[in-house]
Amino acid sequence: MEFPDRVTINSHAIKIQPRYCETDQGGVVHHSVYSVWFEMGRTELLRVNGIAYKDLEEAGIFFVMARLEIKYCQPAKYDEQLELTTSCTNVTTCKIEHCYQLKRVCDGALLAEGSSTLACLDKEGKVIRMPEFLYPIPACDSQGQACEKTAV
Amino acid sequence: MEFPDRVTINSHAIKIQPRYCETDQGGVVHHSVYSVWFEMGRTELLRVNGIAYKDLEEAGIFFVMARLEIKYCQPAKYDEQLELTTSCTNVTTCKIEHCYQLKRVCDGALLAEGSSTLACLDKEGKVIRMPEFLYPIPACDSQGQACEKTAV
Amino acid sequence: MEFPDRVTINSHAIKIQPRYCETDQGGVVHHSVYSVWFEMGRTELLRVNGIAYKDLEEAGIFFVMARLEIKYCQPAKYDEQLELTTSCTNVTTCKIEHCYQLKRVCDGALLAEGSSTLACLDKEGKVIRMPEFLYPIPACDSQGQACEKTAV
Amino acid sequence: MEFPDRVTINSHAIKIQPRYCETDQGGVVHHSVYSVWFEMGRTELLRVNGIAYKDLEEAGIFFVMARLEIKYCQPAKYDEQLELTTSCTNVTTCKIEHCYQLKRVCDGALLAEGSSTLACLDKEGKVIRMPEFLYPIPACDSQGQACEKTAV
Repeated sequence: MEFPDRVTINSHAIKIQPRYCETDQGGVVHHSVYSVWFEMGRTELLRVNGIAYKDLEEAGIFFVMARLEIKYCQPAKYDEQLELTTSCTNVTTCKIEHCYQLKRVCDGALLAEGSSTLACLDKEGKVIRMPEFLYPIPACDSQGQACEKTAV
Repeated sequence: MEFPDRVTINSHAIKIQPRYCETDQGGVVHHSVYSVWFEMGRTELLRVNGIAYKDLEEAGIFFVMARLEIKYCQPAKYDEQLELTTSCTNVTTCKIEHCYQLKRVCDGALLAEGSSTLACLDKEGKVIRMPEFLYPIPACDSQGQACEKTAV
Repeated sequence: MEFPDRVTINSHAIKIQPRYCETDQGGVVHHSVYSVWFEMGRTELLRVNGIAYKDLEEAGIFFVMARLEIKYCQPAKYDEQLELTTSCTNVTTCKIEHCYQLKRVCDGALLAEGSSTLACLDKEGKVIRMPEFLYPIPACDSQGQACEKTAV
Repeated sequence: MEFPDRVTINSHAIKIQPRYCETDQGGVVHHSVYSVWFEMGRTELLRVNGIAYKDLEEAGIFFVMARLEIKYCQPAKYDEQLELTTSCTNVTTCKIEHCYQLKRVCDGALLAEGSSTLACLDKEGKVIRMPEFLYPIPACDSQGQACEKTAV
């Protein structure tokens, strides 16, 4: 497989509609589900940059969660329209940081925000250098850090 | 690792207490969770026979679901005491069949019953012969088939 | 909320792309996930008929799983394009039956097929009559039963 | 139902054995599962204090996640023995804070640590006063804060 020379898009929004099984008996989406959505957000942010995460894994590059923080503001509900914006806020030789904003589409209410740090590992779980093409180009930097101030 | 010469126990019961995240907004355990519990039942049935499923995988023996049927009788609820009985009902050269009964401990009510067929594969996903030691000894056969009549 | 006079579409296909968290260490989608997808299939089949399942629940009509059968043919893999076709095969005064076919888009391979029976309950869990508008119109009947022959 | 006059135990450890479905194709437990385990830890910490969370809900007291942070140190693996220690670190009129340490039993290795803040709500989702009996007795305070220094 081929990877692009450079990622050029630092922020990307996807639509999410909570599944029935993602709710709990409290009548809202269970808090553990948000990190699953954040992962989907990262996957699609890679994809709009021309990278399928499964191709990264096939090339021996694994991202694993090192730190995750989520601030829950309002509950997400079954089947409502949500928009998750995922932004890459920092890339170093062995870590990549993202921030997330989850909003309800109908009224723009902020439901949750979060941030995460991923480590870059090989198949055996050893820390490896982040692939060159994942470093953002300088011009995109400022854009990607748009939500850093509000990140939890 | 070492495996026993022969499995000798064909039926085994485990206790289950539904987790909060396993419920849905209907106020009961989501129907997709039962197959997770059945898998736990099979794992513990192996374990009482001296076999850890992870050792089987390390030895290159993978069980994959080929067919699953579940009949839901009454809903399971958060945090209540349940008992799941898993019985091995048939073993052939490449398949292993189980049946399941899930009961509420407090009153013995039958909440669900099910049956499944697993195929035995190698790491590449090719069908392989069932390991000899997984064949039940003849004496146990009748016992294991106890719930076959009631299996869905 | 308002419901249509009658459902008119008996079969509907949706696209599914397995999430990373839906895989297991066997390298394929865990077998418990298929029933989650089937539920999504039923939800979207309702929606193309002008019915949101959440509106049914708000109107005091709950569908609960009474019987589920799945035949697993080939494993589904992370991030590949799948198509799930959900068909309503029978509606009676208190039950509704569906069948499912899950195919890989790239080559049309059949990954799984299944069938289910849902009961219609009120908020307290008592069996109630199926709403009139969920009965298929006679003309659609033949169409809906297209996959019944192949249903597991 | 009856609740105790006062919680007296601020820290409690439970055993966890990762389920097969909790792993992902990376060969380790998916990062979203840890928050499910933390919830189990809180439930059992309540239970050793004589409180079933389901009784709290029946009494109209709901805890919802307001903030969650997890630091992942080493991966958890299928079927290995883990120990999760959950400590209550702070209780205010409307919030309760916990910290968590997840260790591998065989060698005591720290796999993850975390902290969370729960809000106390009524059935309609309005913030309510924390029940009196959930405030720790002064003597227990110091004990409960044992892991606060190491909390993420």
